[in-house]
Amino acid sequence: MVTNYVIEGLEAVEKKLEAVVESEVELLQEAGRHIITSGGKRLRPRLGLLAYLATGHTDYEAVVPMAAAVEMVHTATLVHDDINDHSLTRRGQATVHAKWGRTFALLTGDFLFTKVYEMMAPYGGIYNVIMADACRKLVEGETLQAAAAKSGEMDRETYKSIISLKTASLFEASARMAAIYGGADDAVVDALADYAYNLGLCFQIVDDILDIVGDPEAMGKPIGTDLAQNRGVMVSQNGGTAVKEQATAVAEAPDDPIAALMAKLRDSGAVEVARLQAHEMGDRARAALEPVPDSVYKQEMLDLVDLVLERDN
Amino acid sequence: MVTNYVIEGLEAVEKKLEAVVESEVELLQEAGRHIITSGGKRLRPRLGLLAYLATGHTDYEAVVPMAAAVEMVHTATLVHDDINDHSLTRRGQATVHAKWGRTFALLTGDFLFTKVYEMMAPYGGIYNVIMADACRKLVEGETLQAAAAKSGEMDRETYKSIISLKTASLFEASARMAAIYGGADDAVVDALADYAYNLGLCFQIVDDILDIVGDPEAMGKPIGTDLAQNRGVMVSQNGGTAVKEQATAVAEAPDDPIAALMAKLRDSGAVEVARLQAHEMGDRARAALEPVPDSVYKQEMLDLVDLVLERDN
Repeated sequence: MVTNYVIEGLEAVEKKLEAVVESEVELLQEAGRHIITSGGKRLRPRLGLLAYLATGHTDYEAVVPMAAAVEMVHTATLVHDDINDHSLTRRGQATVHAKWGRTFALLTGDFLFTKVYEMMAPYGGIYNVIMADACRKLVEGETLQAAAAKSGEMDRETYKSIISLKTASLFEASARMAAIYGGADDAVVDALADYAYNLGLCFQIVDDILDIVGDPEAMGKPIGTDLAQNRGVMVSQNGGTAVKEQATAVAEAPDDPIAALMAKLRDSGAVEVARLQAHEMGDRARAALEPVPDSVYKQEMLDLVDLVLERDN
Repeated sequence: MVTNYVIEGLEAVEKKLEAVVESEVELLQEAGRHIITSGGKRLRPRLGLLAYLATGHTDYEAVVPMAAAVEMVHTATLVHDDINDHSLTRRGQATVHAKWGRTFALLTGDFLFTKVYEMMAPYGGIYNVIMADACRKLVEGETLQAAAAKSGEMDRETYKSIISLKTASLFEASARMAAIYGGADDAVVDALADYAYNLGLCFQIVDDILDIVGDPEAMGKPIGTDLAQNRGVMVSQNGGTAVKEQATAVAEAPDDPIAALMAKLRDSGAVEVARLQAHEMGDRARAALEPVPDSVYKQEMLDLVDLVLERDN
């Protein structure tokens, strides 16, 4: 069940995101609005709202800028990712990179980062420390991923580090900041943060699975793109290096090696192994919530695990 | 005269910059250190130190992280600029882009931005608001510049907006934050901020002049690069559009149109007009300091105007 405060909070986040990218430099405003209004699951801000509400407060407005800032970090990263990945579509629309070119996409990403900073500044000390730390981890994760893609070597350890840094850390920060803002005691703050962290791991593994077996139409972007760039869970689950797997696939199906590699991975059982791991992370997320007092918000967080596990886009 | 506290403060800024880019992701640490240790005038942190010392305090350590953060904003921007400009050398060394490639340069710039955030977070509210605002302006200025370069249209108004946003705003923020931190009254805070803002305009005009008449060896980078990319003061001073000027230059000297355009600009008197403007901004900077109580730091700020006007790199 999605509660009213969460629905209202997410609407307020949406408004905040659109308003904050206002700029006298039209191009930045247009490109910013383009990526913001192209949708997205808004899972990260939802976690912030839920964590805050779970501490017993109802004035969700207080954490709207914080929740919007978290989503903005993610959005800025997407714009820069799409440059590095040469991606042309995202959420069924042209990427900023495809529409405005590389130079302006780079600047749009930077602009969105300054907006994170702007929205967070008024919260002061500890919240900015947590957010800065999450941003740093995110960039470190992206860098590890790019380095692994370049070297063609991705083992399980590296994969775990990457998804922890690039995805789970921001989920965690969203819940932790909101829980602290809600005045929860340390045990509850850590419980909510731990829940969000594990949900982030779960979410990313499912994301990587969908890149192999997902429906491109439901997802609004082509599948196989992570695989084509030596990334993602499937490679690690298969044990070998992506380069070796790809070389084999090229030899076997020179016309469409990625499709061949995807078919091979689907047949290998790797998807099932990854699904088991996603479920394990989902179980950990649910278990982490134990110290959190019962409420409709806690229930919604429990339900969110199923939504993440069952999503098709 | 450069006072001891300023020298010590700048040494502390240097140490802070090198220390803060430490990362478990070796590439980010290496690329970060590479750009940081390649030098730079450190004018922006110097302004922060001077403004703080001019308010009567001597514990310069208090503003070192803030001053380092300001220099880090500038450094991060340089890394992203070099991607967009395809620059291969900077301060006599290979750019991050040339050495590590585009993907990692983009991520290194992002990483350095997260470090700005990290260093600023503990200062809390107002300082982070000022810094976030300066960062936003900087990106807006870069975007206006890229848009003008693309369209080939750069009038005086646009040029003024660009140098104000991309350069003077960060100079101003550095002095303003430090003056507020020093507890100066509003008139003195505004005076120091106004001084720094005008010094920033002066600095940028001189920078654009050096791109035309500078000594590449003294500067550690080739000259004519701004011109080649439709940027800089000379174009605006000449009245016409860069595209038109370049077309003429290409027709007249197809082998090296940029050299021909540079020679033409040198002969046209445009450099002298720009020099007059730089001096005017320098005068304004000096005049702005009037409400600031006399001190060796105020004197050093006055001397700094001459240094900026007379610099050859």
